[in-house]
Amino acid sequence: MSSDTDSEAQEKLIDLAAEFYDQMDRGEIPEMSIPTRTKSNIVFDEDEDVWVYGERESTRSANSIRGARKLLKAIYTIEFLDNQLEEDRSSTLRELYYLSESWDSNEAQFSDQDESNQLIEDLEIVSDVRREDFHMRPEESGAKVMGPLLLREQTRRGDREIHCQKDVGQGGYQIPNNPDTIEFLENDAEFVLAVETGGMRDRLVENGFDDEHDAIVVHLGGQPARATRRLTKRFHDELGLPVTVFTDGDPWSYRIYGSVAYGSIKSAHLSEYLATPEAKFIGVQPEDIVEYDLPTDPLSDSDINALESELEDPRFQTDYWEEQIELQLDIGKKSEQQALASHGLDFVTETYLPERLSEMGVL
Amino acid sequence: MSSDTDSEAQEKLIDLAAEFYDQMDRGEIPEMSIPTRTKSNIVFDEDEDVWVYGERESTRSANSIRGARKLLKAIYTIEFLDNQLEEDRSSTLRELYYLSESWDSNEAQFSDQDESNQLIEDLEIVSDVRREDFHMRPEESGAKVMGPLLLREQTRRGDREIHCQKDVGQGGYQIPNNPDTIEFLENDAEFVLAVETGGMRDRLVENGFDDEHDAIVVHLGGQPARATRRLTKRFHDELGLPVTVFTDGDPWSYRIYGSVAYGSIKSAHLSEYLATPEAKFIGVQPEDIVEYDLPTDPLSDSDINALESELEDPRFQTDYWEEQIELQLDIGKKSEQQALASHGLDFVTETYLPERLSEMGVL
Repeated sequence: MSSDTDSEAQEKLIDLAAEFYDQMDRGEIPEMSIPTRTKSNIVFDEDEDVWVYGERESTRSANSIRGARKLLKAIYTIEFLDNQLEEDRSSTLRELYYLSESWDSNEAQFSDQDESNQLIEDLEIVSDVRREDFHMRPEESGAKVMGPLLLREQTRRGDREIHCQKDVGQGGYQIPNNPDTIEFLENDAEFVLAVETGGMRDRLVENGFDDEHDAIVVHLGGQPARATRRLTKRFHDELGLPVTVFTDGDPWSYRIYGSVAYGSIKSAHLSEYLATPEAKFIGVQPEDIVEYDLPTDPLSDSDINALESELEDPRFQTDYWEEQIELQLDIGKKSEQQALASHGLDFVTETYLPERLSEMGVL
Repeated sequence: MSSDTDSEAQEKLIDLAAEFYDQMDRGEIPEMSIPTRTKSNIVFDEDEDVWVYGERESTRSANSIRGARKLLKAIYTIEFLDNQLEEDRSSTLRELYYLSESWDSNEAQFSDQDESNQLIEDLEIVSDVRREDFHMRPEESGAKVMGPLLLREQTRRGDREIHCQKDVGQGGYQIPNNPDTIEFLENDAEFVLAVETGGMRDRLVENGFDDEHDAIVVHLGGQPARATRRLTKRFHDELGLPVTVFTDGDPWSYRIYGSVAYGSIKSAHLSEYLATPEAKFIGVQPEDIVEYDLPTDPLSDSDINALESELEDPRFQTDYWEEQIELQLDIGKKSEQQALASHGLDFVTETYLPERLSEMGVL
């Protein structure tokens, strides 16, 4: 959120508007091309090991009223974002939608929030500026960090130096909406442990796992927000820490791992910024369900469909995942992280995690 | 979470078990009576201004296999809680459910989590000890605080002194699962502003509302967790601060206000511990929708039903609420907090809140 980033974002936005101007100046009908954002246009980038958009593009052109209206909305939004950056303000996606009601042209108002959200994504892709650098915030983030790390966060009220064990309560350090305002000062961490559920996160913190093993415990809180994925990637890239992901043992949780490691369809244009392809999956693995005789629930029909579609998903086409997913389809069961408590409250921190992490070469 | 509280909780648990013992010793079939927890057994306590349970009780008796099994589970759970307090540990409701799989009697295992959750509520009511004092945690809390307040939180790793503006990032201070571990040291606050949505909370913090008006901004995050309601009540009772609640303008959000102010059916046995009857509703009020010409959505059938049932709800039987709810049914519309952005991003902090708070006598 330095002013350099701000001016660069502003410039790229103005370039977009200038492009429309030039098109009109040349007597052309203004248009904007963007990659098609559907599952069929997602390709796996073998070099970067993340999902990115393919070659297919769609064009928004002013040659129809519908298309002209879309471009008009884009221009109003560009002006709004440019002002926002100029004034060093920020806003939520929802505020943008409502704010359009105050614009002087009725034609430029959004008809629903899907439309304004999609336009922001379009502008991200076309301008190659991230939403965070437009100063657009999501509604909620809520994820938090606990571990041996001293950081400095640039806030609107000045810089704050915070140690994520010594200067925080039991609840930990709250990840801000734009984690690029964080600078890492000092750390004694050996690895990152990203945890799906709040209950398990609290268990690890209560048992002092972060302290004993010098782990940075990141609470994902279900499908992780962009801020959480970005910060996790920065832990890996800038601090050189191995990243591990600990979730429930069901197909939906494997997708949480997938979104940390490989990105998601919705944000494939940001995979290189958000995804940590080196992230490793701890579990709960289907083989853990068998080996540790965990309490289970039967797979539902939608679980089975999700597992079968994961077998087709390039992110899960490895020997490891094929074996695990086929085992799970075979046993027809799933388990939650907290099911490990069936062996006692300390089993996860004293037995399960140390065993798995040393198998994985992390501990 | 002082050891006094712990020993008192332990004693009350042991008393329950001793009661079963005495019943058997006298040759009686052991039993346990608890208030019926249904809407028909909720009464409004005029003195305390909160909802409490009525006179109706149901009895769990060992005179049937089903009843005997329930008491057996209660005894195993009492033993588990007693050990947990002895060792100064804590656990989640979900862990308790899974942990029962490790108990030596199969008959004592819970068949689903509803059963273990309900048993913990039963034990809360019968023993008059709160879940937090049993050291039982919920799965998630996630709410956070920003404002001119210095506090000390007792954590498992020692005490932490935290100023909720100067020592936290943009994300604020994360409320711990048991806010009774917090001691208030110093504050310059004039009032508490509890906010439903994360987007609005971030807007207030970005606009420096907490700083300019010496407000403690509490993020409710939808239907607030017990920890959030408890801390809000403590701000009122111990610091003498007026509490105001700012939500969306729809029937579900009025219930969020209702649960802060008057308690909920599920936790009516804790109303005196969790509810802040003096809490005042800021809005979005149906009259604001009209007065400020806010963007709206039409009321759905379930919205209309919810409003009609609120007209029957003792918590909303005041002239004020009747007028507002009837106005809303009349205009057939609802608005969100963030709809205030249709008048610009500063409208809420520069116009709407100052106007409302001075009408209410808070500012």
